[in-house]
Amino acid sequence: MSHTSGASSSSSSCAACKFTRRKCTAECVFAPYFPADQPLKFANVHRIFGASNVTKILQDLPESSRADAVTSLAFEAEARMKDPVYGCSGAISLTQTRILELQAEIQELVDQVHHLEEKKPMRLT
Amino acid sequence: MSHTSGASSSSSSCAACKFTRRKCTAECVFAPYFPADQPLKFANVHRIFGASNVTKILQDLPESSRADAVTSLAFEAEARMKDPVYGCSGAISLTQTRILELQAEIQELVDQVHHLEEKKPMRLT
Repeated sequence: MSHTSGASSSSSSCAACKFTRRKCTAECVFAPYFPADQPLKFANVHRIFGASNVTKILQDLPESSRADAVTSLAFEAEARMKDPVYGCSGAISLTQTRILELQAEIQELVDQVHHLEEKKPMRLT
Repeated sequence: MSHTSGASSSSSSCAACKFTRRKCTAECVFAPYFPADQPLKFANVHRIFGASNVTKILQDLPESSRADAVTSLAFEAEARMKDPVYGCSGAISLTQTRILELQAEIQELVDQVHHLEEKKPMRLT
């Protein structure tokens, strides 16, 4: 159901205005980032951050940064829905563990290179 | 200023109840995780997620998981305060870039090991 009408309204409500049953105006801060065909994106962001907090975050940013902010908020919200305990901190923890593993692997290879270089035949060039 | 009194209250309000000027009872869902001496931890979480969303997240979790959930929420909130565009997704992006760099470093070392092994003098043992 669309709640838009009149000259100042967009032709259809965005996902945020549909969800919150508000009139979607041309000034809607959500409309450019929450199209009507992606209702879950807004539902997740609303459930985790709340529409009013997201409004504040977006309004405090220049328009050029808002799309990236919405992408990261949607990513974090989805991660929190999937993993209510760790959210996307779980992903950070996993990648940090992976970094430690890779660093250990590098150290082993460096040791192997040193060992092989010690055994390399002397050259006269 | 403490808002607690009576038998069902804790001896002092937690940071969440102080912030929201509510009476902090023995059943307060925030009290075990937001001590009065860490007011910023709650202020950040409240600003980014909203107290009511955090209440819902915590109430949906078993008590044994709530401390970890609060730690990750506080981490994400602080990251979003520092970087309103990318939040902790920025940290994930940086660690993923670091992983790619380390994988490239490993590949170089593996190539170096192969090269050195090819030049290794034959042994008769």
